[in-house]
Amino acid sequence: MNNFVYHNPTKIVFGKGQIKKLHDLVPAMHPVMLTYGHGSIKKNGVYDQVKKALYGHQIIEFGGIEPNPSYETLMKAVSLIKENNIAYLVSVGGGSVLDGTKFIAAAAKFDGAEPWDIVAKKTPLKEALPLGCVLTLPATGSESNCYAVISRKDTQEKKDFGSPLVYPQFAVLDPLTTFSLSQKQLLNGVIDSFVHVTEQYLTYNSQALLQDRQSEAILCTLIEKAHSIIHDEPEYETRATFMWCATQALNGLIGCGVPQDWSTHMIGHELTAYYGIDHAQSLAIILPRVLESQIETKKEKLVQYAQRVWQLASEDILTLSHKAITETESFFRSLGMKTKLSDYAIDPQEAAQKIFERFTKAGTVLGEHGTITPEKAKEIILKSA
Amino acid sequence: MNNFVYHNPTKIVFGKGQIKKLHDLVPAMHPVMLTYGHGSIKKNGVYDQVKKALYGHQIIEFGGIEPNPSYETLMKAVSLIKENNIAYLVSVGGGSVLDGTKFIAAAAKFDGAEPWDIVAKKTPLKEALPLGCVLTLPATGSESNCYAVISRKDTQEKKDFGSPLVYPQFAVLDPLTTFSLSQKQLLNGVIDSFVHVTEQYLTYNSQALLQDRQSEAILCTLIEKAHSIIHDEPEYETRATFMWCATQALNGLIGCGVPQDWSTHMIGHELTAYYGIDHAQSLAIILPRVLESQIETKKEKLVQYAQRVWQLASEDILTLSHKAITETESFFRSLGMKTKLSDYAIDPQEAAQKIFERFTKAGTVLGEHGTITPEKAKEIILKSA
Repeated sequence: MNNFVYHNPTKIVFGKGQIKKLHDLVPAMHPVMLTYGHGSIKKNGVYDQVKKALYGHQIIEFGGIEPNPSYETLMKAVSLIKENNIAYLVSVGGGSVLDGTKFIAAAAKFDGAEPWDIVAKKTPLKEALPLGCVLTLPATGSESNCYAVISRKDTQEKKDFGSPLVYPQFAVLDPLTTFSLSQKQLLNGVIDSFVHVTEQYLTYNSQALLQDRQSEAILCTLIEKAHSIIHDEPEYETRATFMWCATQALNGLIGCGVPQDWSTHMIGHELTAYYGIDHAQSLAIILPRVLESQIETKKEKLVQYAQRVWQLASEDILTLSHKAITETESFFRSLGMKTKLSDYAIDPQEAAQKIFERFTKAGTVLGEHGTITPEKAKEIILKSA
Repeated sequence: MNNFVYHNPTKIVFGKGQIKKLHDLVPAMHPVMLTYGHGSIKKNGVYDQVKKALYGHQIIEFGGIEPNPSYETLMKAVSLIKENNIAYLVSVGGGSVLDGTKFIAAAAKFDGAEPWDIVAKKTPLKEALPLGCVLTLPATGSESNCYAVISRKDTQEKKDFGSPLVYPQFAVLDPLTTFSLSQKQLLNGVIDSFVHVTEQYLTYNSQALLQDRQSEAILCTLIEKAHSIIHDEPEYETRATFMWCATQALNGLIGCGVPQDWSTHMIGHELTAYYGIDHAQSLAIILPRVLESQIETKKEKLVQYAQRVWQLASEDILTLSHKAITETESFFRSLGMKTKLSDYAIDPQEAAQKIFERFTKAGTVLGEHGTITPEKAKEIILKSA
């Protein structure tokens, strides 16, 4: 087990009817900016609940934050904040709204000339506006971590940043808010949560026995409930389980003291940036090919994953590792998720070349051993055809 | 799944050589009181590491906090704090020193006439001194929760209290500090951690699928490593795993949204208060008898526990439940832990009567259904003969 520091200060307020607690969760700092997406919260009643709970607070709204929140959109919120001396942010929506809100919180207090440096140059933050959130889409884990992923339209870039200053102070998680999600959103959420776990689990043995079992706990639970989450009529307990799995998948806990991969995310971000496919769609394409490409160094964990998560058996380590990868891809497809570039009419040659050039220019190497060179990434993309 | 609030603000600093980080973890608040037990930290080098890391801080020491920390001892520290205007507390030791330090932190700022009311009447705290800790004995989970258990010698009482104000601000967990622990301390720590999990897990089905699997993760890991932790030469990875299991067993996470029992602890506390047996010894005696006594209402979870944790099979639910209990008791005994009152020459009739009278007087009812009446508790103790 590697040395680690774990400090997650977010207060989780979980359960049905909990949005009303916003009244006490949001401090008496005025005005408050309410951020949200394209208005689904106005159709499903969440907006009304939030406004009612925040009665008495002075509120300025900023809607229209898109999936893969863009720098261009978010900077409009930053202007609004400066004009109105906003003191606190409340994000209402899924991971995109929240990631965008984290960037807004950081950019509003950024003392450099170009806030894009927060993601492009990872300029450390000295200050950020405080924020809290009401989560309506279990997927990204952003509600209880200090990371965000931001896109830039003009340069077709998608990049992450992180700072302890952007941990949400509170996260209200009411599973009832997920009842109006589309099948596609639920499918994306399940895949996203699943791959968050594999990025931290499918690496190499670091003798972190408990963390391994905690990761397997999330994977097994997601597998047990995935079909029901996506395809059945909304049911409270199933959605509650899904919501808690998504939070636990990326709140830092299972990553304590273990090596981490994240190459699937890094390559996937490029596919989203260039071709606009959903984040989870990009992960489902890339993960199986990353695992195959790295099978030699990942085989010990792949075998453990095969045995404990998929209950597979075989005497041969490589056979078992391959079986685990096949099982994973079949699971994604059985849920309705596509796993090939051709499913989205993306030209693999073009994608591979574009991403190869970008990684080469930036000197990007990926994976827990830093052995996925731009050349290797190109191979992975070509094999995702 | 029940609604819940989870907010654990303790910063965990985990790994070899991390005591030196105390230098930055302890804020510049003077003077600092260093609390510890009977001096084992002076023999194993931990004291020297702490003093070196805190070079430059003004320090006042308070040693001599005993296992099952007593009100009588702790109030001496409170006097010392008032005399010296202590601003911050650093606990160095195991759960007893830390629990004692939490009480000191609370009592030093208590505005009532009788600080014992903090535990006896659960008087809510308005203020407490801030504290951090260096943990040297994995067992109680106190390093990352807001609870403490305090004893009173003159009345032979042992009682708990809790307040968000006594969460340690930081917890330094260096597995190397456990290398000098005795076999008895390690055995107690394993049992204590194990029973912390069962108190939150062996209740009734609340459809908390992930929490169940997270509990099973800790139990399986403890079972896998218990013999090695207790009986083998100290080895870093094993001790690191143990230390992280103990923290995860009682940092609130596995208890999110689930019913909880704690009757084993409550009856066990009485045995410790009256007869002076170690906390973990009391748990190992009482747990199997509580499970037998409550088998009708616990059988669904006992079956899950039998299958997933002990890999037992049987077509009959009650048979499987009984097997799980037998397996648990055998596991304790195989580690060297005794599980009968007679093993400690405690008269079951006397113990049962004393505890029955105390519970009756206080109106105590225990268990996740509140169905363990004083009469039932008496039966449980008599069956522990």
